[in-house]
Amino acid sequence: MKPISILLFAVLCQSALATHSPENIKSPKNIIMIVGDGMGPSYTTAYRMFADNPSTPEVEETVFDRLLVGMASTHPDMDTGYVTDSAASATALSSGVKTYNGAIGVDANKKPVQTVLELAKEQGRKTGVAVTSQINHATPASFGAHNESRQNYDQIADSYFDEKTNGQFILDVMLGGGWKYFIREDRNLVEQFKAAGYQYVDKLTQLNDVKAGTPLLGLFADVGMPWALDSTDQMRLPTLAKAAIRQLENDQGYFLLIEASQVDWAGHGNDIGSAMAEMHDLAVTLEWLEQYLVNNPDTLLVATADHSTGGLSIGANGNYSWSPSWLKNLKASPVEIGTQLMTAKDRGALATDLLGFELTPEEISSLSVIESDKPRPFHNAISKILDNRSNTGWTTTGHTGVDVQIFAKGLGSEYFRGHLDNTRIAQTIFELLRNKK
Amino acid sequence: MKPISILLFAVLCQSALATHSPENIKSPKNIIMIVGDGMGPSYTTAYRMFADNPSTPEVEETVFDRLLVGMASTHPDMDTGYVTDSAASATALSSGVKTYNGAIGVDANKKPVQTVLELAKEQGRKTGVAVTSQINHATPASFGAHNESRQNYDQIADSYFDEKTNGQFILDVMLGGGWKYFIREDRNLVEQFKAAGYQYVDKLTQLNDVKAGTPLLGLFADVGMPWALDSTDQMRLPTLAKAAIRQLENDQGYFLLIEASQVDWAGHGNDIGSAMAEMHDLAVTLEWLEQYLVNNPDTLLVATADHSTGGLSIGANGNYSWSPSWLKNLKASPVEIGTQLMTAKDRGALATDLLGFELTPEEISSLSVIESDKPRPFHNAISKILDNRSNTGWTTTGHTGVDVQIFAKGLGSEYFRGHLDNTRIAQTIFELLRNKK
Repeated sequence: MKPISILLFAVLCQSALATHSPENIKSPKNIIMIVGDGMGPSYTTAYRMFADNPSTPEVEETVFDRLLVGMASTHPDMDTGYVTDSAASATALSSGVKTYNGAIGVDANKKPVQTVLELAKEQGRKTGVAVTSQINHATPASFGAHNESRQNYDQIADSYFDEKTNGQFILDVMLGGGWKYFIREDRNLVEQFKAAGYQYVDKLTQLNDVKAGTPLLGLFADVGMPWALDSTDQMRLPTLAKAAIRQLENDQGYFLLIEASQVDWAGHGNDIGSAMAEMHDLAVTLEWLEQYLVNNPDTLLVATADHSTGGLSIGANGNYSWSPSWLKNLKASPVEIGTQLMTAKDRGALATDLLGFELTPEEISSLSVIESDKPRPFHNAISKILDNRSNTGWTTTGHTGVDVQIFAKGLGSEYFRGHLDNTRIAQTIFELLRNKK
Repeated sequence: MKPISILLFAVLCQSALATHSPENIKSPKNIIMIVGDGMGPSYTTAYRMFADNPSTPEVEETVFDRLLVGMASTHPDMDTGYVTDSAASATALSSGVKTYNGAIGVDANKKPVQTVLELAKEQGRKTGVAVTSQINHATPASFGAHNESRQNYDQIADSYFDEKTNGQFILDVMLGGGWKYFIREDRNLVEQFKAAGYQYVDKLTQLNDVKAGTPLLGLFADVGMPWALDSTDQMRLPTLAKAAIRQLENDQGYFLLIEASQVDWAGHGNDIGSAMAEMHDLAVTLEWLEQYLVNNPDTLLVATADHSTGGLSIGANGNYSWSPSWLKNLKASPVEIGTQLMTAKDRGALATDLLGFELTPEEISSLSVIESDKPRPFHNAISKILDNRSNTGWTTTGHTGVDVQIFAKGLGSEYFRGHLDNTRIAQTIFELLRNKK
């Protein structure tokens, strides 16, 4: 190599190795952002153990391990404190600004801020959300709407129809739950979207029959979708993700937000059984996307969490152990088991059947003594049995402030390495979107 | 660039960007490994909030943020389960093999395994340990000794003198606690090391006066060193680290293990006050090393944790907040405050003085009601006050299985990116050591 080539090599290599400055690469055609709601580091680690094949001496790596590139801080605007909710964190991830807890796509002064999804739409890309919550829940709403409060569910649903970018609907594809908000007495948004040219489905199986490449609204539950453990399609997130991509693929590219919404809900319920099932639903989605990216190298995948939930710990009460085997044979979610227990004649027999292991007399007794016409004490008793068996710990029914992981693959993924604030994730995606295709 | 140059560029760039295969780079002259014992992701995140300047709108990044490159799984040999102790994890980090809890530099069959420190010594590098525990505690012992049990403290201390690599002592520099094990009725290892040519000091201030570049034994406490909060030199780990490097620097290079041993001890005690002070001691050490590496680019720094401790959570009990301000004015460790409370005439006044904030009547009452001739209830009451004020959660007095972070800088640091098993960290260092200097 001549001196000039060596110099050029050095310069180009430095550029290739540089991080946090993506201005010199091609804009990814497609961007897939994934949020594991509430999925802190304890969840991905616990999932590796849950998914481990106990008949081999090693603990097999997971898709999370293969895709890990960094970690993100999640604190909201400092007037709120150090612990975020899903709205503030999703707004940070969608728009690159810190805001208050509860804020949907607005800054600390309640002023709307552009989201990466909106910029992608403005540039001619198709856009979509595929989530297991209602589609107007905090995380998807923060990408496709602007509201001073996450609690204004009807307003957020309305805005998906009423607000336009370049004269077009913001979202080409919407898959998740939400009949309650989209088919109301005062307004039927489903009929309005149909009249505007959207296909509408309300059963997962119908996703196989929709015409590819067209606008699609799919609502599969009144509010959030059933727990993975209670679903007829236990791989419901991969089903939603694949269907969304089928609708979105086009020459101009797309932006898709996928959310495993209910990892967080399991954390709020201190429910390790559902937490692992929801993580599995997400892991299978990521495994499919990992292959998709092999065939679509012009696509960027960035996955992270908005915060962690529950103060989950792998091991508790002074014991150096964690036993996920007790979580592997559940025939229903702990919430569903608890609900069925309320009217069961033989609580011990029902729990033994649905948990997939023989209960001890003490465990049966912990169910027998419950006197309540509310389901919560029954849910809690089942979750407690699983906590004790697996040696799982929790500190809260709310969120915690621990940093979350960043996972990335594909075009531009090297710019998400190391520690980033969650706002920097959105800022980097803005920069990548603004590059030439 | 001619086609051949372009091809060469592509090949060289690919090599420069490749991870997990360090065979083609120069061996680092010096390797500094750092273990934050018990320092899971909640600790580094909490430390960012603890160190945050509340008068600025942003949360300032820490040295941990600047150095973050990946995360490591920590589980021990699968016959032990998923949650490690410090001995099994330190053996994984020192030798690259999974073993049972309690094992010091031996595999699951209790067979000694070579450590990276020993290979460095065999190659002519100088070697050292600088720790805040006793120097024969699990982590340093797993780098410089081999024993079937971490509890055999005297045997491990003896082996530092009796075992040789290429006819030389394994450790050129040993700094930390341990009089109890090195000056015994049956054997005085201090006198033996002195007779063999080691300088010996027993006060931190004496480290300024030792002759640079010579073998050194420094023992500064009977067992572990005092808590950072109780030390006359509150930056005791930077003091030890700088002194160790001064002794170790030479043309053939060195291998140094530094351990912030007492992050773990604070976690076992569910003591958030000492946990943050011990983290600060480590952070200042890393900040100094960060600068050292600017001036010594042929050095590799790799820092990680062996596991997390206590199930620490940032936020607890359903409240979305964490308030580190209450931890910033402690005049002594909670353990020391608790001990002084045992004989205090006015417990409320003493606690108010040493905690640095006015106690409420309820908090004073929680101290007044204690009737015990043991210090533990007093320690616990002080820690509980700090937990409530800061909204800190804990699930255990033992370890948890969550993945820990990897921090790296300097020559070869790119090979520690992403997710690695903890054994892979040692294996990569072995590979780097075996490369040509």
